[in-house]
Amino acid sequence: MGEFDLIEAIRARTALRRDDVRLGIGDDAALLAPPPGHLLASSIDTLVEGVHFPVGTAPEDLGWKALAVNLSDLAAMGATPAWALLALTLPAADARFVERFADGFAELARMHSLALVGGDTTQGPLSISVAVHGFVPAAAALTRAGARAGDLLLVTGTLGDAAAGLACLDRQHVRADALLAAPSGTREALLARLNRPTPRVAAGQALRGVASACIDVSDGLLADLGHLCTAGGVGAEIDAATLPLSSALLTLFDDDARTGFALAGGDDYELCFSVAPERAAAVTADLARLGCGVTRIGRIVAASGVRVRGADGRELAPPRRGYEHFAR
Amino acid sequence: MGEFDLIEAIRARTALRRDDVRLGIGDDAALLAPPPGHLLASSIDTLVEGVHFPVGTAPEDLGWKALAVNLSDLAAMGATPAWALLALTLPAADARFVERFADGFAELARMHSLALVGGDTTQGPLSISVAVHGFVPAAAALTRAGARAGDLLLVTGTLGDAAAGLACLDRQHVRADALLAAPSGTREALLARLNRPTPRVAAGQALRGVASACIDVSDGLLADLGHLCTAGGVGAEIDAATLPLSSALLTLFDDDARTGFALAGGDDYELCFSVAPERAAAVTADLARLGCGVTRIGRIVAASGVRVRGADGRELAPPRRGYEHFAR
Repeated sequence: MGEFDLIEAIRARTALRRDDVRLGIGDDAALLAPPPGHLLASSIDTLVEGVHFPVGTAPEDLGWKALAVNLSDLAAMGATPAWALLALTLPAADARFVERFADGFAELARMHSLALVGGDTTQGPLSISVAVHGFVPAAAALTRAGARAGDLLLVTGTLGDAAAGLACLDRQHVRADALLAAPSGTREALLARLNRPTPRVAAGQALRGVASACIDVSDGLLADLGHLCTAGGVGAEIDAATLPLSSALLTLFDDDARTGFALAGGDDYELCFSVAPERAAAVTADLARLGCGVTRIGRIVAASGVRVRGADGRELAPPRRGYEHFAR
Repeated sequence: MGEFDLIEAIRARTALRRDDVRLGIGDDAALLAPPPGHLLASSIDTLVEGVHFPVGTAPEDLGWKALAVNLSDLAAMGATPAWALLALTLPAADARFVERFADGFAELARMHSLALVGGDTTQGPLSISVAVHGFVPAAAALTRAGARAGDLLLVTGTLGDAAAGLACLDRQHVRADALLAAPSGTREALLARLNRPTPRVAAGQALRGVASACIDVSDGLLADLGHLCTAGGVGAEIDAATLPLSSALLTLFDDDARTGFALAGGDDYELCFSVAPERAAAVTADLARLGCGVTRIGRIVAASGVRVRGADGRELAPPRRGYEHFAR
């Protein structure tokens, strides 16, 4: 199967009609019509085999995840997804792999009415880059900057599940006795969070004009919150006891491991955001209506840096830094 | 050096102010303001070490070429370049490599007032994906479709030089006696075409509303012209004797080799386009004013397929197909 057949297989599986796509896959570039009065939010992210996902990850999961990590970036800006470009590098022209990859990609794309408008398939070590484009009303975009001392710090969903899922695969930290005793599906719930993350797109849009700053948790809470603090010239305090943990995480891991996962595990793709105290109740209710849980985990402070306090109020030594490629 | 330092090194070297970049590198996504009344032309292309460029290619050349191949796609649509996203995957956090890469990228970006607005650096086998965005007035975009029987077929610049440059590196087909006798710089001229291709951006814009169809020659003339013919439901005849060849190519390679390079060599990044006969003289003059040579190489015909005729008018057996990844 040649490159053009692969592209056709992807095109057929991801077909989705949008009036603003004037020319999609099949020419030298796509031709797109951005809506007036909006900014275009654009981002690119790469997943490399053995670095961002384990060897042997199912192609459907890869297709989903390659798009999900990018949609999460749009969510963090409050943007509405619209279009994507896909650069797929794979060792051989494996038609079944490409079809399954495209199916996983399309499954998530359809949920957000996102059109794949172009791409490139090349030979090489397995790696996927996706560039996404979304719209956000000109003055309503969320950014990392803008948090102010006194703002409350909130996070959607639960933290640490994806890192826990990876630990299950590696059989690290997981309590063997707990694994045997756990209800069926416990381990699978964590693996689903690793392989099929849910970008918080609707939540991000609901936070427009409400959150003072927002970032998605891709590299770990401490690392990403650190970026948010740096961008705003502020600091943050986290109450470790309030970190939202899933029942699966609570079942399979002891306290140290799960706190470490929640603070420093990557691949959560939840939104961490700051909000003025008087708006916290309303935003919690708004997100709940979208089916998105949200938890207050701390506050923004004037002093720079991110500190974590234990249940006794004492500062915890931070666990390992968040996930950083090229970390020494 | 961590990921964030690498990104900062790239940001510093590629800094270019554009009023339509409302938020550039450093948040979850860039925020961009497309101009009213225009379509956005978007494309992504990947270069993989050992597949699209030889191991040992200078980082500056890689930075240039990774952008050039994408700008060439915009040129083929008649679009004006504006913004790019860069996904850079490299085996180790080599600061000097990244700086040199960014310098090469920035050199070409500045020539087109293009802003790098976002990116991702990851660890893995050396590979670069660039997504580019440009603008084209809504009704003026060039596409592959639209060629009509009777149109003339033209190509910018010269063909086959990049493939000849690669052959020089591999010491294939090149005449050793000619290499010794050639004026200094002959081989280097071919290598420059391989490593520093010139995207025909100004020519593409000049062809808006003039060319009936246009494609860039990235995979080889026969392959790319085949796409143009398929898109238009037409065929083409090429007169081999008219193929534009550089003096370097003529000096170092015999007739068979250079015809093969010109017809099937990849990486030319010239524009191949069709135009109604009565407009050919004007377009040739227009492109000449831009410093862009253009040559009539054949015509569009009704019968599908691409045929090549020798100087005696007889049909030549086609050389190997154009460059196709995953070709068996």
